[in-house]
Amino acid sequence: MNDDNPDDSHDTAGKAEAPTRTLSEQVVKALADGRNKRVRKLLQRLHPAKIAALLERLDPEQRLALWQQIHGALEGRVLGHLSAELRPALAHESHEDGTPETDSAAATPPPEGDGGARQPSELEAVRSALDAGKLKRVAKLLHRMHPAKVAGLLEALPPTERSQAWSMVETERAGRVLSFLHDEISAALAQELDLDDLIAAVQPLELDDLVDLIQTLPAELGSRLVLATTGSRREQLESMLSYPEESAGGLMNADAIEVRAEVKAGTVLRYLRLLETLPPQTDMLMVVDRKGHYQGALRLSVLVTASLDTHVAELMQRDIAGIAVDTDSREVARQFQDLDLMSAPVVDGEGRLIGRITVDDVIDLIREDSDRTVMQMAGLDDEADMFAPVLVSSRRRAVWLGINLVTAFLAAWVIGQFQGTLEQLVALAVLMPIVASMGGIAGSQTLTLVIRGLALGQVQKGNVRVLLNREVGVAILNGGLWAAVVAALAVVWFGDWGIGGVIAAAILLNMLCAAVAGLAIPLILERMGIDPALAGSVILTTVTDVVGFFAFLGLATVLLL
Amino acid sequence: MNDDNPDDSHDTAGKAEAPTRTLSEQVVKALADGRNKRVRKLLQRLHPAKIAALLERLDPEQRLALWQQIHGALEGRVLGHLSAELRPALAHESHEDGTPETDSAAATPPPEGDGGARQPSELEAVRSALDAGKLKRVAKLLHRMHPAKVAGLLEALPPTERSQAWSMVETERAGRVLSFLHDEISAALAQELDLDDLIAAVQPLELDDLVDLIQTLPAELGSRLVLATTGSRREQLESMLSYPEESAGGLMNADAIEVRAEVKAGTVLRYLRLLETLPPQTDMLMVVDRKGHYQGALRLSVLVTASLDTHVAELMQRDIAGIAVDTDSREVARQFQDLDLMSAPVVDGEGRLIGRITVDDVIDLIREDSDRTVMQMAGLDDEADMFAPVLVSSRRRAVWLGINLVTAFLAAWVIGQFQGTLEQLVALAVLMPIVASMGGIAGSQTLTLVIRGLALGQVQKGNVRVLLNREVGVAILNGGLWAAVVAALAVVWFGDWGIGGVIAAAILLNMLCAAVAGLAIPLILERMGIDPALAGSVILTTVTDVVGFFAFLGLATVLLL
Repeated sequence: MNDDNPDDSHDTAGKAEAPTRTLSEQVVKALADGRNKRVRKLLQRLHPAKIAALLERLDPEQRLALWQQIHGALEGRVLGHLSAELRPALAHESHEDGTPETDSAAATPPPEGDGGARQPSELEAVRSALDAGKLKRVAKLLHRMHPAKVAGLLEALPPTERSQAWSMVETERAGRVLSFLHDEISAALAQELDLDDLIAAVQPLELDDLVDLIQTLPAELGSRLVLATTGSRREQLESMLSYPEESAGGLMNADAIEVRAEVKAGTVLRYLRLLETLPPQTDMLMVVDRKGHYQGALRLSVLVTASLDTHVAELMQRDIAGIAVDTDSREVARQFQDLDLMSAPVVDGEGRLIGRITVDDVIDLIREDSDRTVMQMAGLDDEADMFAPVLVSSRRRAVWLGINLVTAFLAAWVIGQFQGTLEQLVALAVLMPIVASMGGIAGSQTLTLVIRGLALGQVQKGNVRVLLNREVGVAILNGGLWAAVVAALAVVWFGDWGIGGVIAAAILLNMLCAAVAGLAIPLILERMGIDPALAGSVILTTVTDVVGFFAFLGLATVLLL
Repeated sequence: MNDDNPDDSHDTAGKAEAPTRTLSEQVVKALADGRNKRVRKLLQRLHPAKIAALLERLDPEQRLALWQQIHGALEGRVLGHLSAELRPALAHESHEDGTPETDSAAATPPPEGDGGARQPSELEAVRSALDAGKLKRVAKLLHRMHPAKVAGLLEALPPTERSQAWSMVETERAGRVLSFLHDEISAALAQELDLDDLIAAVQPLELDDLVDLIQTLPAELGSRLVLATTGSRREQLESMLSYPEESAGGLMNADAIEVRAEVKAGTVLRYLRLLETLPPQTDMLMVVDRKGHYQGALRLSVLVTASLDTHVAELMQRDIAGIAVDTDSREVARQFQDLDLMSAPVVDGEGRLIGRITVDDVIDLIREDSDRTVMQMAGLDDEADMFAPVLVSSRRRAVWLGINLVTAFLAAWVIGQFQGTLEQLVALAVLMPIVASMGGIAGSQTLTLVIRGLALGQVQKGNVRVLLNREVGVAILNGGLWAAVVAALAVVWFGDWGIGGVIAAAILLNMLCAAVAGLAIPLILERMGIDPALAGSVILTTVTDVVGFFAFLGLATVLLL
């Protein structure tokens, strides 16, 4: 009678039959909802005989789906409880499910050629297994892959198949997989897990990865994950969450190993042996004083070559400076690149060591950064999931199209001012897109150069004037060249020297404007704190369209009519 | 009388006066040529009295230029030999040349705020010193900066100033600076050095950086650098040069430290102490068998925590696979990212260890790769020096403009087919750029998504169909939405329902084509082995322009006339 909350504590103390029946019901419900992880958890609490009974009761489709969730080790015992009718069919299923590898064999990666050639077949294999409902085979395929590859594969799957495949990833590997996914997809898949599964899944994560994940999740779910941690991990987590994502604090991990300058190399080595393991990506120890102030870095490669009675003070490198916790993450990336670092200390305002940044996070940062530039230049959200629902994608891209429409109407309005001219000289209508287009291409070359130069720090206040001279020089040369070519073609086409002269002048003028605009727009946007990659190209197009049409049609009106 | 080859050996044996006089002449010549490095070398061979005599002979401008090349330690002695007339002026110069820091103080980086805010002033300081001819001050400014920063500063300088500043970089730091420069600039500056200076400059470089440099230089100069190395360095260099730049072989360094699986941790530690130093970026030792076959990696972080009598075999990680020497460099980058590696072993066809790749080179690779994508999408050579001569830049960009012109004329030709229609209905000429532009924007969104998806491996044969359905879905939604908006605006503007209907149909049609083309073009280019980022956008624009104009004007001709 007690249908809601069948798991409630007062129920479990009741008759032995009641919870079991309810468990089976829960299994059916979870199966219908596609919550395969829950199905597998519930099955663990059911006796094989009960599972067999449940299989008998289900319709054929459900039965096969449930069979896919029964652990390999349990299959034999369940089969034993089945009717003679069902047994052969399911046994056959189970035989079909894949190669007879044991778990230990499956855990080692395939011997060779794991690269380019093999990858497409992994996606196809998973998709065809999903298609056939062979979720066990999917689980096996995923189990053999590195979490990073699993993440790549999940991102290459359309949404429903992605959820199905995701439900077959073992909980203990799910956290690592989440950490390799793009933010948007990671957040969506994390929310598909039951809270206790999610908590278990993130247990093996390094703190910086956990911080990244929490920052992508809805605030409430994120804080539940924080509450699920304990002790010093909780403290560190909370302090790391207090730093902005795009700063050194947001990149760091609180797992630096600290040593004192006054001890000897041999003592440090004995201390490390007591620790038994070091955090991943440890290439240096951090030397601090009594009050925790960072003093220098002791590379392991120096430590292992030093004679045992040398003091740390003589071995440590003082030239590896502590990165201030509020340093912008782009600046952090630049320092890693310039100094060829593998990890670097992070210090607070008083110079106390509070953590370290490792190069793997810097690589992710660099990749995301460049990714974002490319995507933004096309008006796409940088986190865009290739398989986000059509409606979501449409809404996102609509904004950019709408902005572009304003630009296009502005250009059309300019043309509209010259309707009289166009009526008299329809050749102008034929040629006018050429003027706008040449300006647009030339401008975007300058724009791209300047955006890159700003990112690399090559474009600075001190050399803008030189750059302007150069770009104008290039515009004069190329503008002159292509103006002449277009003019000649236009004269040949329309047999009118006037049109040739007008289009040549318009192209040259537009390319000059394009050069100036291509340089000025990103500089102004940067000054205003707007990312030039995001808004630069649409503003530039507006300029080159308006100037191009106005110059061409205006000159024609004045000179040719 | 012997004016050519004044340095010839039979001359140096001659009278004491002859070579000295010739040396002075050489100094004057080198000074006039702006070869400051040579001036400084020649000055080292001249007695201070001779230098003073030379200074007296020169005209004021040359005198100041020469003074800038006299080493600080020598200044006092030269001053002592000068006439009372000149002495105060030059002494004043030397006093003005900068702050009285000693070399050791200048070598330590400035204490704080080395980031964003300070950098512009470095460029400005160098430029104003160059402007004033204070090359000594330039040398001091550069001396204080990390080679990576010097490289960044050189790239931010226009060509003549760049050469001047470059001539003031100490030879022993010049090699490191070269390794941080972009290929094109690095090659140009390397060739500005005398061969023996260049040879001395590259001496401290790691082999992989030297290989990169040699690959950017003209073949003849490159082989001279190879010939200048000796012994095992020469052998390694030649073997590394035999691998293509874009492969694991091109990225690797031959400096892996090898150990055997059967020895104990304590033995390894004693062996390392005998080595005294390890190569930079060493985070792991490579375990090989008797025949040099790679067996696994022993991380230093594992070694230092292991008890001394554990065997390497128990400590090494077998899951760090050797990267085949012919692996594509993009695949190498992916493995570093997926496995969070800091370095990785490289093996030949028989599985023998031949080198290792370090993460700093992988970071450079990732950055260059993404840089190239952005630049190529704008039709710019990825190595483009922002301050390359105007003529060189113009020629490079002209190609892209010419290709675009063909596209633009194709579109104009389509419009030309409808001159009769345009004459009757000039409103079409006003509105037609809107149709082309909306298609272009929508198409480039799909194109960018697919290019990125291909690079990340998310777009594969197995999911192209799903992606096509999605993109068409988005095109229908956004096409429908914006077609309606544009139609409404057009009806309001021109008071003609027919035009509204025609433009709506044309926009919808063009955006559908754009979606299909945006997906198909990069896939086809990829299949043909052409980089989609390079040619994708111009082909896409051709499609959306031609389809847009044809659909709009064609429908109008059929329906409105």
